Amino acid sequence: MSFKRNSLLLSLIGGLLINQTISAATETTPLDAKASTPQQLGLMQGIPPAAEKVVNFSNFLQFPFTRWSFSHIREVVPTVQVSRGSGAISALPRAERDDIDSLTFTPIGSDKPMTWEQSLAANYTDGIVVLHRGKRVYERYFGALKPEGQHIAFSVTKSFIGTLAAMLVADGTLDENAQVSRYVPELKDSAFGNATVRQVMDMTTSIDYSEDYADPKAGVWEYGRAGHLIPRPAGYTGATSLYAFLQKLKVEGEHGQAFAYKTVNSDALAWVVQRATGKPFAELLQERIWSKLGAEQDAYLMVDEVGTGFAGGGFNASLRDMARFGEAMRLNGHFNGQQIIPESVVADIRKGGDQSQFAKAGYKTLPGWSYRNMWWVASNDHQVFTARGIYGQTIYVDPKAEMVIARFASYPVATNSRIDPTSLPAYTALANLLMASDK
Amino acid sequence: MSFKRNSLLLSLIGGLLINQTISAATETTPLDAKASTPQQLGLMQGIPPAAEKVVNFSNFLQFPFTRWSFSHIREVVPTVQVSRGSGAISALPRAERDDIDSLTFTPIGSDKPMTWEQSLAANYTDGIVVLHRGKRVYERYFGALKPEGQHIAFSVTKSFIGTLAAMLVADGTLDENAQVSRYVPELKDSAFGNATVRQVMDMTTSIDYSEDYADPKAGVWEYGRAGHLIPRPAGYTGATSLYAFLQKLKVEGEHGQAFAYKTVNSDALAWVVQRATGKPFAELLQERIWSKLGAEQDAYLMVDEVGTGFAGGGFNASLRDMARFGEAMRLNGHFNGQQIIPESVVADIRKGGDQSQFAKAGYKTLPGWSYRNMWWVASNDHQVFTARGIYGQTIYVDPKAEMVIARFASYPVATNSRIDPTSLPAYTALANLLMASDK
Repeated sequence: MSFKRNSLLLSLIGGLLINQTISAATETTPLDAKASTPQQLGLMQGIPPAAEKVVNFSNFLQFPFTRWSFSHIREVVPTVQVSRGSGAISALPRAERDDIDSLTFTPIGSDKPMTWEQSLAANYTDGIVVLHRGKRVYERYFGALKPEGQHIAFSVTKSFIGTLAAMLVADGTLDENAQVSRYVPELKDSAFGNATVRQVMDMTTSIDYSEDYADPKAGVWEYGRAGHLIPRPAGYTGATSLYAFLQKLKVEGEHGQAFAYKTVNSDALAWVVQRATGKPFAELLQERIWSKLGAEQDAYLMVDEVGTGFAGGGFNASLRDMARFGEAMRLNGHFNGQQIIPESVVADIRKGGDQSQFAKAGYKTLPGWSYRNMWWVASNDHQVFTARGIYGQTIYVDPKAEMVIARFASYPVATNSRIDPTSLPAYTALANLLMASDK
Repeated sequence: MSFKRNSLLLSLIGGLLINQTISAATETTPLDAKASTPQQLGLMQGIPPAAEKVVNFSNFLQFPFTRWSFSHIREVVPTVQVSRGSGAISALPRAERDDIDSLTFTPIGSDKPMTWEQSLAANYTDGIVVLHRGKRVYERYFGALKPEGQHIAFSVTKSFIGTLAAMLVADGTLDENAQVSRYVPELKDSAFGNATVRQVMDMTTSIDYSEDYADPKAGVWEYGRAGHLIPRPAGYTGATSLYAFLQKLKVEGEHGQAFAYKTVNSDALAWVVQRATGKPFAELLQERIWSKLGAEQDAYLMVDEVGTGFAGGGFNASLRDMARFGEAMRLNGHFNGQQIIPESVVADIRKGGDQSQFAKAGYKTLPGWSYRNMWWVASNDHQVFTARGIYGQTIYVDPKAEMVIARFASYPVATNSRIDPTSLPAYTALANLLMASDK
């Protein structure tokens, strides 16, 4: 990535930049993790905060305002509750290890080793929990996140709707081979009309819509404006709800040929799931998963202007509760004394999707991976599978190492390809450390 | 109130009206309680709901959309959490009585008796809990409210900030005789500048600002637009935060002469309280009261565009939790095994404010009442004191009858003078019933 492209990306996605002179050229570099915390910058400090310290709907997706907003989404936009229910909190015993911070690994594409602790700053981690055999061996919070607070999970949300859809396929409520239009007639004339539910679940649809965050004309930005997830310009005349936008999407090629990561699939799937069950996504998620985990906190979901929950990326939860969900997945769906997700559903996810179709998408940091039920599946010797969200959100399940990592972050730019090099090898190193100490 | 004035009020405050021909004249009457439930009207039903069934920021304060929105505020506007904390839920045992629905009383200004059950519909009650000696003798939910859901409390919120301020006066953190400008220099040149904290606490300030909801030019509407609690017109150039608006208010006469109910006092007080403690209102409320009640649910508070909690009316909580707070007040601040609010603070509230100053405000349904620490105090033989919110929100404490009533409602028009006639005498009748059955 050239300096010029890099700057463009930062200017588009990032916000406040500091100028640094690098050799002869003038280059902009975002504030580092420590310098960009809300405390350090005084964001939302003071009653009321000074004008330049305010984070609200006008800037909440711009770095470094994201360092505050990602832990305070409900203070910025409308949200719907996903209740923890009234059951007891499930145990997640603390068994802190002191050998993790100093663990070293070599980032992808680098020849210089890095410590685990350094990687957290490199990734602008807001919080991270590592479970080993269900015990918290490592837990840290930075910036604005607190153990009892919720952080936006972005596309980790997709793995929830994907799991729910797979659960409904498993119990016969949903036919994965049916066309989307059977459940949602309103999508008949859209790109989704003749796609099957399965193609949507695995994102092998072919839709004329771009997820390129660096392109201000990309569909993903239009989508955000439709859902009022980002501000609309004056005189805006586009779609005014998530589902109104979905109906306008046109087909690009033939479905079922290649993996193409497009957020709109997740909301189309949510529409299908909600029609099949008659229940809003938030309610279904609460009923089938969240209220069964023994979560510590209620979670919540961003909604658009007609009350539709944003299944593509609007889920917010506490870090420990995200780890609980990861642990439930690691334990093949059995957690907190009950089979929450059918074993067959977890098995189907772990088996992965079509690797050759995935390869066509060209993810350099994810060789041999695939996408199944909206989970990212490594199909490596550890059988790793993960939920991934933009800006560094992760649920990382390593069955072989009996390890689950939940991480929230607010990386300055919206690209996991910049985050993976200092996180995936760190997770592998940690898995090896945990396995080695078992011996 | 004439038909014309009535219609104007309904048109301004209410929303959808049905036309009914009353004798020769054409009169508009709002849908009744049963006909206006979201279920009956199909509000927010369907995924997504049909355009005319959508409730969002454009209509959420218009009846009958209020029947849904008042139980779903966080799905419409930004809010901040007021956590219940991690303690056990405090007991509120059920001891249902079957003689309450049929209880009769005579509404103020009427000669026709009404049953308790009828009064709930007459008042568009969304939910009501009656505690007698701490036990739930009556509990009902209507419309969109559920036991585990939160409802907006409107001006009941004021009693929370008033109680917190009184607690801070009691512990010496706040000087009630100091001028507001000592704590908030930004208010020096406003109407609040030379008012004392005590005058603000008891709303005896004299401010050029109208709380007349029937007047579209009233300050209260400007205030709502400033806080973005209601939509702003295109090209809006007014204040863009609650506190920016407060700074522009001018004095009307002399402070300390008469009670004048103006919401801006509550937010000015919140600003003082937050400056005195260095903590946001939501955090202070959580720390000092909410997390100590053994509440069942987290509560939440509406915030403006700079993150300021709306102390004048933005609190949302579950009905049972509101009853818990009422019970704590009835028990002189001691509840859930601890002294949450100092006994002296509750005693000061129960003693009431200046009745002659209150009388000047001319509340026909509240003879002999007064206002103290943002509580309404009857000073009658039952020593009743209450928190009151527009559209029928109530925490009603009757120490003599050992009774607490918490009620949420969505009355079609914003005037308690229309609600009191069918509620206050009903509460008195119920108190007498409960006392009689003790004998």
